[in-house]
Amino acid sequence: MAISAVKRTEPKAVEQAIRALQAQLGNKVVTSDAVRAQHGHTTTWIPNQPPDAVVYAANTKDVQTVVGICAEARVPVIPFGTGTSLEGHVNAPLGGICIDLKDMNRILAVHPEDLDCVIEPGVTRKFLNESLRDQGMFFPLDPGADASLGGMASTRASGTNAVRYGTMKDNVLALKAVLANGEIVTTGRRAKKSAAGYDLTRLFVGAEGTLGVITELTLKLYGIPEAISAAVCPFPSVEAACNATIMTIQTGIPVARIELLDALQVKASNAYSKLTLKETPTLFLEFHGSAAGVKEQAESFGEIAKEFGGGPSEWTTKPEERTKLWQARHDAYWACSRLREGARPLATDVCVPISRLAECVVETQADIAEMKLIAPIVGHVGDGNFHVSIIVDAEDKAEMETVKKFLDRLAKRALSMEGTCTGEHGVGQGKMKYLATELGEPALDVMRSVKRALDPDNLMNPGKIVAL
Amino acid sequence: MAISAVKRTEPKAVEQAIRALQAQLGNKVVTSDAVRAQHGHTTTWIPNQPPDAVVYAANTKDVQTVVGICAEARVPVIPFGTGTSLEGHVNAPLGGICIDLKDMNRILAVHPEDLDCVIEPGVTRKFLNESLRDQGMFFPLDPGADASLGGMASTRASGTNAVRYGTMKDNVLALKAVLANGEIVTTGRRAKKSAAGYDLTRLFVGAEGTLGVITELTLKLYGIPEAISAAVCPFPSVEAACNATIMTIQTGIPVARIELLDALQVKASNAYSKLTLKETPTLFLEFHGSAAGVKEQAESFGEIAKEFGGGPSEWTTKPEERTKLWQARHDAYWACSRLREGARPLATDVCVPISRLAECVVETQADIAEMKLIAPIVGHVGDGNFHVSIIVDAEDKAEMETVKKFLDRLAKRALSMEGTCTGEHGVGQGKMKYLATELGEPALDVMRSVKRALDPDNLMNPGKIVAL
Repeated sequence: MAISAVKRTEPKAVEQAIRALQAQLGNKVVTSDAVRAQHGHTTTWIPNQPPDAVVYAANTKDVQTVVGICAEARVPVIPFGTGTSLEGHVNAPLGGICIDLKDMNRILAVHPEDLDCVIEPGVTRKFLNESLRDQGMFFPLDPGADASLGGMASTRASGTNAVRYGTMKDNVLALKAVLANGEIVTTGRRAKKSAAGYDLTRLFVGAEGTLGVITELTLKLYGIPEAISAAVCPFPSVEAACNATIMTIQTGIPVARIELLDALQVKASNAYSKLTLKETPTLFLEFHGSAAGVKEQAESFGEIAKEFGGGPSEWTTKPEERTKLWQARHDAYWACSRLREGARPLATDVCVPISRLAECVVETQADIAEMKLIAPIVGHVGDGNFHVSIIVDAEDKAEMETVKKFLDRLAKRALSMEGTCTGEHGVGQGKMKYLATELGEPALDVMRSVKRALDPDNLMNPGKIVAL
Repeated sequence: MAISAVKRTEPKAVEQAIRALQAQLGNKVVTSDAVRAQHGHTTTWIPNQPPDAVVYAANTKDVQTVVGICAEARVPVIPFGTGTSLEGHVNAPLGGICIDLKDMNRILAVHPEDLDCVIEPGVTRKFLNESLRDQGMFFPLDPGADASLGGMASTRASGTNAVRYGTMKDNVLALKAVLANGEIVTTGRRAKKSAAGYDLTRLFVGAEGTLGVITELTLKLYGIPEAISAAVCPFPSVEAACNATIMTIQTGIPVARIELLDALQVKASNAYSKLTLKETPTLFLEFHGSAAGVKEQAESFGEIAKEFGGGPSEWTTKPEERTKLWQARHDAYWACSRLREGARPLATDVCVPISRLAECVVETQADIAEMKLIAPIVGHVGDGNFHVSIIVDAEDKAEMETVKKFLDRLAKRALSMEGTCTGEHGVGQGKMKYLATELGEPALDVMRSVKRALDPDNLMNPGKIVAL
């Protein structure tokens, strides 16, 4: 049954569910238009699709209550973290009850000797890192937005540090989730590794709330490196920057971050973040290690950059300069929006084998030029992953048609290069149509089988990832 | 339905399946007692459980043929790599057809720029590394045995290098598998990361052949480090060695290997591998990096060791000395067997949070002493993972009862310390009984649901991981 064939839940069932929720959870249940609209929003081309009500869950029991009532009334359940996902993950295309997890924001335990912590899903990455700093530890994953860690797990997020520290799949040791049947599943223990049965942790990481609602996470932590240095290195072309990246990774330099900004993004960031960079393809880098190690890494990279016509690279170990640089990188999204009055960025991502990266970026730039779009590119290039932020006037129908065509060509280009339609944003609603090309029908059949096995009534965040 | 309630397949169905296989696959089908016994063996306390026939598959089509015929006749299918797994994974408790994958041993592609390769499942780790060496790359995972990579993926193997390079879950980019319905599923692409749907790669890694037969693997590779050094460091006690390990990991020293041998294992290895080490708890280490980086790592470790009364550590960058050291570590299993005439080692593993490691090892040593067993301990201590090799006379029933009691206490001890009943050996048949304590019934229910969804007739390696 295709999602398009699935009707919105019967209004009577929804009303009944909301009444039951109100009886049990009181003013944690909100049905105002403003709050509903805020939870049905998206930063894609997908229109706002509000849920019928929002429940602010305070604990696992609240989540179980919502899931139980919704299961009985056959009403969808949509988990919500900070709403910073980009492919229509938290929208409610079929209506239903949104569970906002922002109040489940406690750090339950920190184990410095084991370098792990146990948290609730509403904890955001910045809050976690502020809480850990005094103990000399940090959680490295950084998707830009101050996302909730439950949301980051659900979308298999990664970001700038993933080239060294991996993605959420690599940094969630275990989790708990409320299943469609109301039970609480525990997927693992605190041991650093385990071969004890199916990898349920990885099954829920990236499942976008379609298999259950994550209510607890055990995360790996890392000691704050003795030394951190950051560098900025201009290149004559995107190819040169990509080739220097390939060589850096091949040589085994353990870069913590290696980010490409194309010339247009540099221009936008110069204006927004008051930088004075040369407007040419540029790599932002960060090195973690001992003082001597960091110096050696920066020098080795400098030599590689030179080989490809890049440089001179400027590098710094001063925290305030590093912060300014990475703040500029994080603000790339906002910087973009200033490129065109009254327009906003529509962000997407793809990921290809690194050997195809330069080709994929250059072809994409040609497409942007041909289609007369304004669309800067930034990339986590150490992983072959890049983002395009198309600055659109969402009210202009003809323009939006062009943008949709561009997005389609971008996803198909990445797929034609042995890549994926999404390196880190997730499938949501926006990328569903590419999964069959990416993985083939048997893979989709397996996904459908797993989904049906765990959520036979298709109530957990329906209409996302795979059509049943 | 408990596995114990499942009867062996009807002899007539088996006969019919074997005839059909012979008609299609000719002399790839072997039914001799010797070959069947060889494929039903195990290095646990579980008795030999031979399959009804062994098929030497040459390609994916052969695997599909076997699965198709077995599905029609309702006969179990058991995939087999090198048979080095330790918990009764490849035995055939219900009979059935074993698919030996050793002839599917081709390296299909190597992509040096992307640091990945595509291989068939019968390729062993040593063969892969020999083939890659000239290109300056290696696949780091090393469980000791020269296991097949399909088997290593299926058991979520790891070994000595996992502390730095992760386990098979971290190093399989994608795979193909023949499902119970005969279809070939592709779980991913060559991009370094993806957020495109459920993580099917991780679903098959560690599934022990119970969800399908792996027929192709895309693996991450690494550049051979510029410099490698190895060190040996004696400690006054297991606690001291464990505490030095904790501090090493916390400090962020990127050790490639950090292995504990207890005093008895050092004694055994001295005798077998002609070493002259002091018979006290000892760490074997390896450092990977630049020449300067490796020196710095070794020095930092040396200072930490000293703080805990360890050392002096001897270290070397000479390949022949390193090889001798790691050969001795790999031969630990054989060294053990010499500790007692006519006996053989029965190996098991557990993994605990590293903060509990010393306590877990010391309690286990006390148990060994109390039960009058001969059982050296070696451990991948950077991960909190350790092995006990109990040197047993498998014919002595009373002794085997003691050993079973010891194994049970060991698994329960690890579980009581927030650990797992198996860090890397897998569940097989031997550890099934601990999963409910480790993860709880809801997790087992999820595993059963997934298993039933993908293999409704329970034909793929039945009787392993979870009872249906």
